[in-house]
Amino acid sequence: MSSRSEHSAVTVLGLGPMGRALAGAFVDCGLRTTVWNRTPGRDRELVERGATGAGSAEEAVAASGVTVVCLVNYDAVDGVLRREPVTGALKGRTVINLTADTPSRARDTAAWAAEHGVRYLDGAIMTPTTTIGTPAAVFIHSGPEDLYREHLPVLRALGGTHTHLGEEIGRAAAYDIALLDIFWTAMAGYVHALAVARAEGITARELAPFAKGIGDILPPIFEEAAEEADSGGYSGEGNPITSAVSSMAHIVRTSEEHGIDAGVMRAAEGLARRAVGRGHGADGFVRLAELLGRR
Amino acid sequence: MSSRSEHSAVTVLGLGPMGRALAGAFVDCGLRTTVWNRTPGRDRELVERGATGAGSAEEAVAASGVTVVCLVNYDAVDGVLRREPVTGALKGRTVINLTADTPSRARDTAAWAAEHGVRYLDGAIMTPTTTIGTPAAVFIHSGPEDLYREHLPVLRALGGTHTHLGEEIGRAAAYDIALLDIFWTAMAGYVHALAVARAEGITARELAPFAKGIGDILPPIFEEAAEEADSGGYSGEGNPITSAVSSMAHIVRTSEEHGIDAGVMRAAEGLARRAVGRGHGADGFVRLAELLGRR
Repeated sequence: MSSRSEHSAVTVLGLGPMGRALAGAFVDCGLRTTVWNRTPGRDRELVERGATGAGSAEEAVAASGVTVVCLVNYDAVDGVLRREPVTGALKGRTVINLTADTPSRARDTAAWAAEHGVRYLDGAIMTPTTTIGTPAAVFIHSGPEDLYREHLPVLRALGGTHTHLGEEIGRAAAYDIALLDIFWTAMAGYVHALAVARAEGITARELAPFAKGIGDILPPIFEEAAEEADSGGYSGEGNPITSAVSSMAHIVRTSEEHGIDAGVMRAAEGLARRAVGRGHGADGFVRLAELLGRR
Repeated sequence: MSSRSEHSAVTVLGLGPMGRALAGAFVDCGLRTTVWNRTPGRDRELVERGATGAGSAEEAVAASGVTVVCLVNYDAVDGVLRREPVTGALKGRTVINLTADTPSRARDTAAWAAEHGVRYLDGAIMTPTTTIGTPAAVFIHSGPEDLYREHLPVLRALGGTHTHLGEEIGRAAAYDIALLDIFWTAMAGYVHALAVARAEGITARELAPFAKGIGDILPPIFEEAAEEADSGGYSGEGNPITSAVSSMAHIVRTSEEHGIDAGVMRAAEGLARRAVGRGHGADGFVRLAELLGRR
């Protein structure tokens, strides 16, 4: 997939489950891969497969023109990169930071990188570790486009699709946050639904075919709602916010009658009720996106 | 579809958007359809299409062996059915209550029906008004199976699929609540994500293809999680609750940095953090269903 070119050497900092998957994909593609992790011992399997285990972070980043960083968050990234021997070793080299955190932390890291002559790309991984090295992986990137193009051959060793979202360095993190927001809120709703169902004597397997039905209607509803959100048309015909409030109240009551915390739905119901209180009861639910964003 | 048999007459109480859709489907199938709504005038179009507009609820229920009720909630249902002339007229007849509310309200209504010699089925409509009369409609029912079988020919006039979930009268409402819980929580996550994305300069249309990707992975994740929930195996390998907490904290921070209410995600994060505090940080997210349900 990737020939041994100027990009044939890559360093991976951070060997949690995702870091190990990334390093493994580089090794599998024949890239000269150097790995490092703060807690030692995590590199054993990778070294057996052909990676080089570095004794320190500065040694690791000095071994390659490009360093891929995948740590738990940007506090951890700062703890590794913002120490003089490492910062010094990175001068003139490229950091591709695939660590998940907020857009503002990505911007702060880019400012630090510019100050120290470090070439910097930020990115996010949208799919689980098992997808890395396969066509199912989804990566998003932001930062200088020429830098992205230069390192695309290395990134391609990770498999999947890579999308450059723009030069603004926080953009990949912003997409990541918005998408994780959808994912984790939906998951919170699902586990809560399982708890309420179980309290009513319904197993998860019994609920599953119907839950799948709900899952199946979400993507088209998301798409339709996106049109409305951008155009500012919030038609609630057939499904106004007042109906949502009514359903939400039933969910909260049923949950609490079983002694089950309904805090997530209470918060959602509160938003919807405030929309009604502001005179938007007849609008569609997407009106809430606009109300949430009002300054 | 339905021949003029003993089931050829049906009454619909409640002519909101859903009630009108139900009555319209009955009319289209050639059933002798009587309609009534507390606020007059809502029956005009239906009467033009061949329905009979009743002058009172008691007159309406007396016109048919089976009355389908679709009101805003069970307070409204009680307000119509639990008045002597109506209750008396219903004696020996069947009520199919498709109004949405909680399982306990369904049980309370069944107890009232039994006390007054009213035959009672409870149900829920899982799809929008536009699906009524088409194969896309999804109805769930609970209550005495023989009563359900007896009235299935009338129900079939509404199109779609009908599932009898069991004799326990609250079961349809319980499924409804659990499924709406998934739906409305996911929608709350989506509108919040749109608000955060917009604050970061990302339009809903730009986010849409990635949001669709999240929507597409939910059904298989729901299915896998259902297995875990029922079996009590909460493997967090590759995606432990601690990772979810980290993502959730990033979402809350980004949202609040933009002045956007993060109450829904704060509530979800609180649940996840409590799971970590109880020693379940390495478990998968479905552990939360079990923790929420603990008494």
